[in-house]
Amino acid sequence: MSEYFIGIDVGGTNVKIGCFDSELKLISKTSITTNAEMGPDIVIDNITAAAKTLITEAGFSMEDVCAVGLGVPGPAKYSEGVIISATNMPKFKDVPIVRMLAERLGKPVVMDNDANVACWGEFVAGAGKEVEDMVFFTLGTGIGGAIVNHGELLTGCGDNATELGHLIIYPDGRRCNCGQRGCVEAYASANWTAQRATEAIEAGSESSLKEILQEDGRITCKDVYEHLGQGDELAKKITDETAKALALVCINMLHTTEPSRIVFAGGMIAAGDVLLNRIKYYFGEHIWTLKKETVEICFATLGEDAGIIGAAALAKHAKAQGQLD
Amino acid sequence: MSEYFIGIDVGGTNVKIGCFDSELKLISKTSITTNAEMGPDIVIDNITAAAKTLITEAGFSMEDVCAVGLGVPGPAKYSEGVIISATNMPKFKDVPIVRMLAERLGKPVVMDNDANVACWGEFVAGAGKEVEDMVFFTLGTGIGGAIVNHGELLTGCGDNATELGHLIIYPDGRRCNCGQRGCVEAYASANWTAQRATEAIEAGSESSLKEILQEDGRITCKDVYEHLGQGDELAKKITDETAKALALVCINMLHTTEPSRIVFAGGMIAAGDVLLNRIKYYFGEHIWTLKKETVEICFATLGEDAGIIGAAALAKHAKAQGQLD
Repeated sequence: MSEYFIGIDVGGTNVKIGCFDSELKLISKTSITTNAEMGPDIVIDNITAAAKTLITEAGFSMEDVCAVGLGVPGPAKYSEGVIISATNMPKFKDVPIVRMLAERLGKPVVMDNDANVACWGEFVAGAGKEVEDMVFFTLGTGIGGAIVNHGELLTGCGDNATELGHLIIYPDGRRCNCGQRGCVEAYASANWTAQRATEAIEAGSESSLKEILQEDGRITCKDVYEHLGQGDELAKKITDETAKALALVCINMLHTTEPSRIVFAGGMIAAGDVLLNRIKYYFGEHIWTLKKETVEICFATLGEDAGIIGAAALAKHAKAQGQLD
Repeated sequence: MSEYFIGIDVGGTNVKIGCFDSELKLISKTSITTNAEMGPDIVIDNITAAAKTLITEAGFSMEDVCAVGLGVPGPAKYSEGVIISATNMPKFKDVPIVRMLAERLGKPVVMDNDANVACWGEFVAGAGKEVEDMVFFTLGTGIGGAIVNHGELLTGCGDNATELGHLIIYPDGRRCNCGQRGCVEAYASANWTAQRATEAIEAGSESSLKEILQEDGRITCKDVYEHLGQGDELAKKITDETAKALALVCINMLHTTEPSRIVFAGGMIAAGDVLLNRIKYYFGEHIWTLKKETVEICFATLGEDAGIIGAAALAKHAKAQGQLD
């Protein structure tokens, strides 16, 4: 009986693969180097081989696998299963990865973007599992977003809904990599948090981070939060700006799809309660007074496994909805 | 055979009632004074009587009516059919209007807020009728909003989704009536457009509107657009600020639910192409350069009938989905 699901999370550096039972319990997982520079055929062959090995070592066969879920970086035509291009994988242009993987594995494959897949993982098994309506942000190099509305991932008229990192919060503000000015990503992503600290020091701000900049030639977001913990005033100011930017998008999302939970994920949440509490503080400062809002703002709980769990869960969901028949 | 639908649009001043055939073609309509100060019982009796008269004069009976749709101002528990309170109808507190009207008319009644109902009207019969995904703004005293996603009105975890007038576009900006700062409503509604012009003149700006302010003691939004047509520079500046604010929320909505059409309705669209073209201009100036966006920004086409059409269409939709059985 085909009762297992495979979840695959394709990143620019690594591909994570997980094998799950019918209740989405993780049986085993693996990770391989993407080697994107080798081009799509070899990369997809490698993923296929690693998935098959994982299954075999777990003691069963591809016959036992029901379907495969796949998370990929955008932009892509998710509905058609085609990667259009990917910043970290320059050889991936118009790659019909769903078809290629389905042929090699002999199983139906469903695909979505990495933010949607991680969101779905948190929704079914992590920070969102008790709710039906959530908004999700990943705070990494950039900011990704996803929305679950009444138990389904929200999609739009094409393949570009929930690009929540590019919500404009400060019109005519910082220039984002996307070409817009004032995107939340250009303030509150890990990279831009570090960048704002760097700029402040270069402009003369006093900070214990100055030494890091002089020694390493750069400051990371992790440095900012470490120095925040040590009481550095600049790190506190930078964190407050990040938290305020994130609180503002929480308010705007509340007034749009009205989630009962807003979940932040990604490397930056390692900052912990000090960041979460500041986001909640600014949310309280800026939200309307018409009525008391009960939305819960919290951090993701699945860590790096969110992608493989979410991908497997998407495959299971597609199966349940008859989309694979 | 019950094949007709009644659409009722309850406003603080008037109640509009329309009778529609099974294809949502308007057969006849009427309008009565709300007389909200008389309290819910009398108001609902009056609506009932007017609806029955409308049906009779159209040559058929309530037997021929399938269902009734109702649009009301918020806040309300739409899902429960209860008006919690209404700014222009102070005697309406916790009024179970759906039950009261259903009992009097002997027909199933469905209810939603006025922005959702007008949006649904435009979606089924007006500016959105060729698309599946649209975002809708009403530009009046305040700004109302609604979203159609994959052919359905978007709702959230409660009764307060798509409060799009309260999207924050200028953090720490103008204080909105809702208690937040920088809401799009506090810049781009008809009232606030007039208010910004008034403030500018009081602060010393030269404008042909100055005479209006001195004579009438106030400036209306209509005055602003009339003087814009006559080449007044302040009116142009005020219009540009309105258009930019609206363009920014268009961009943010595009990055959220990715509609293929964004529709503006309400009294302010009487300003015509001069306003629409400026919204499009600012949209083009501020949207990302990652990809070319094809979303169409346009004005509503149904005028004041949007509410009754939308209400009747909601009743038909609820019937088709088996929600009235």
